[in-house]
Amino acid sequence: MTNDYPVTATTRVKRLAKRGSYDRAVVHAILDEASLCHVAVTVEGRPRVLPTLHWRMGERLFIHGNSKNGLFQAMRDGAEAAVAVTLMDGWVLARSAFHHSVNYRSVMAVGKFVEITDPEEQMAAYQAMIDKIHPGRWDQVRWPNEIELKQTAVMAMELVEVSAKVRAGPPVDDAEDYNLPVWAGVVPLSLERGQPIDDPTPSPASI
Amino acid sequence: MTNDYPVTATTRVKRLAKRGSYDRAVVHAILDEASLCHVAVTVEGRPRVLPTLHWRMGERLFIHGNSKNGLFQAMRDGAEAAVAVTLMDGWVLARSAFHHSVNYRSVMAVGKFVEITDPEEQMAAYQAMIDKIHPGRWDQVRWPNEIELKQTAVMAMELVEVSAKVRAGPPVDDAEDYNLPVWAGVVPLSLERGQPIDDPTPSPASI
Repeated sequence: MTNDYPVTATTRVKRLAKRGSYDRAVVHAILDEASLCHVAVTVEGRPRVLPTLHWRMGERLFIHGNSKNGLFQAMRDGAEAAVAVTLMDGWVLARSAFHHSVNYRSVMAVGKFVEITDPEEQMAAYQAMIDKIHPGRWDQVRWPNEIELKQTAVMAMELVEVSAKVRAGPPVDDAEDYNLPVWAGVVPLSLERGQPIDDPTPSPASI
Repeated sequence: MTNDYPVTATTRVKRLAKRGSYDRAVVHAILDEASLCHVAVTVEGRPRVLPTLHWRMGERLFIHGNSKNGLFQAMRDGAEAAVAVTLMDGWVLARSAFHHSVNYRSVMAVGKFVEITDPEEQMAAYQAMIDKIHPGRWDQVRWPNEIELKQTAVMAMELVEVSAKVRAGPPVDDAEDYNLPVWAGVVPLSLERGQPIDDPTPSPASI
């Protein structure tokens, strides 16, 4: 396996192409750090978008949800999906309105999701999901039973047509604007975890 | 104007309907707090999704980007869009894998974006965008010139078919799981601004 995803007409980064990357390590790192993806599917001729958790196992991207979800039904019927994963790293405040920007790391993946129906594969997928949310948690919680497995669909997409796009660093202004009397720089953004809040219903264990 | 958006077949929240809301105040608050949206459009028969900044002026949702962007071209030709805005507020750690969840506030808006071509309207839109990123900044920065206005398209969608979906609060486990020896509760998540980083290229002003 090469280090880069092949660049196709679909995945080639067109706008600000220098921000594009097809490096598997870059793509994997973004997918693994982010929790939330947005999945676009055309359902009955209309665009639909689903915000949902994602996780990765090797070169497969997983999502899950209610078995009856309309997007999942369309996927079972062969509908293609476009998945975006976006991490905002900072506001880029330039001296001109035009050069204001965002530092971000994003991934775009296009392909077809296939439903995971093998119970062992489903359990392995859920383990990866739960342990991504909170490492080691799978060994502590009650695992899904048969009814729960039926209510929920797990879908996987092979990572084949994939690209990343990254902006980092300070603003880039036009030369004649650098003397304007306005602060310029980056205001970092990060998704932070706060202090855990105990379930008010008593539980015999601490986190 | 009523306080609620009308519920249509498109916007009716189907899964976990009790989490749905059509309240304008709820929708507006989510749109205004969030910076990032994901716009899904079907382009030449294929689903596409664009992560981009959004902002709101009254009952109009705005996005902007390169004038030649393929999604914008499709929108000019009348393509419908589905927009998702998603704020993650916390990990919900339950005693069973199945009841793990996310506290979130999300908005879904469906409709057509129309390009803003009037220069005064464009400037008003950019002012709203810049002041959303950093209040009061519009009065400090250099405003867009004619060339910059041409390079960038501003698109607006009337908020008509809109819904919100919100999950908050502690996990909800099955009765028989409450005695399992595992911590349960919520780990809050929030997008935090860090210490501003000066542009290494000197500027005669401070933030």
